[in-house]
Amino acid sequence: MVQINKANDVVTLINVFTVHPDNHQKLVDLLVEATQTTMCHIPGFVSASIHKSADGKHVANYAQWHRAEDFQAMLKNPLALEHMKPIEEIATFDAHLYEVVESVSATD
Amino acid sequence: MVQINKANDVVTLINVFTVHPDNHQKLVDLLVEATQTTMCHIPGFVSASIHKSADGKHVANYAQWHRAEDFQAMLKNPLALEHMKPIEEIATFDAHLYEVVESVSATD
Repeated sequence: MVQINKANDVVTLINVFTVHPDNHQKLVDLLVEATQTTMCHIPGFVSASIHKSADGKHVANYAQWHRAEDFQAMLKNPLALEHMKPIEEIATFDAHLYEVVESVSATD
Repeated sequence: MVQINKANDVVTLINVFTVHPDNHQKLVDLLVEATQTTMCHIPGFVSASIHKSADGKHVANYAQWHRAEDFQAMLKNPLALEHMKPIEEIATFDAHLYEVVESVSATD
């Protein structure tokens, strides 16, 4: 189960992809496949959650890694790079690393 | 506690703010204050998690609402709009509504 909690010792990657609506579902499928077959086995992986936008033009990956160094190492992993190729052919993306500074829930 | 789960009956807003590094912490503080004092009391609010980027230039809000209509109503709420004014003076933002299509955790 994926949790967002400022007490968790993780770094968070939020990657927002922009894609033509014709390729919206294809991008979702490529990201889900990359996550299930490769990313989840890479050292330091904590979680990844793939989000499909209502506007048909965006997909977001909310991913957690143990340390920023784990994420940086993944970017040089040949298997991960192989998965990124077809994604970069159909989409642009805007990715940044974050820390959670506050998390408020209606059930808190 | 905030959870990401495709079985949850929520819509997700991912809002990525871009800000000058001089105003990075100020933007974080404004968003945390807006969440704690106002947003969490608006009907349909489920959660909001404020993320501060490592690059000093971005802040992301990962927010969950019961329904898209609840989020749309919040955008017209005078108290919420009052909180957005100083934020819009120092930052730009790129916001989209999403559904979670897959969530993979190393502990699953």
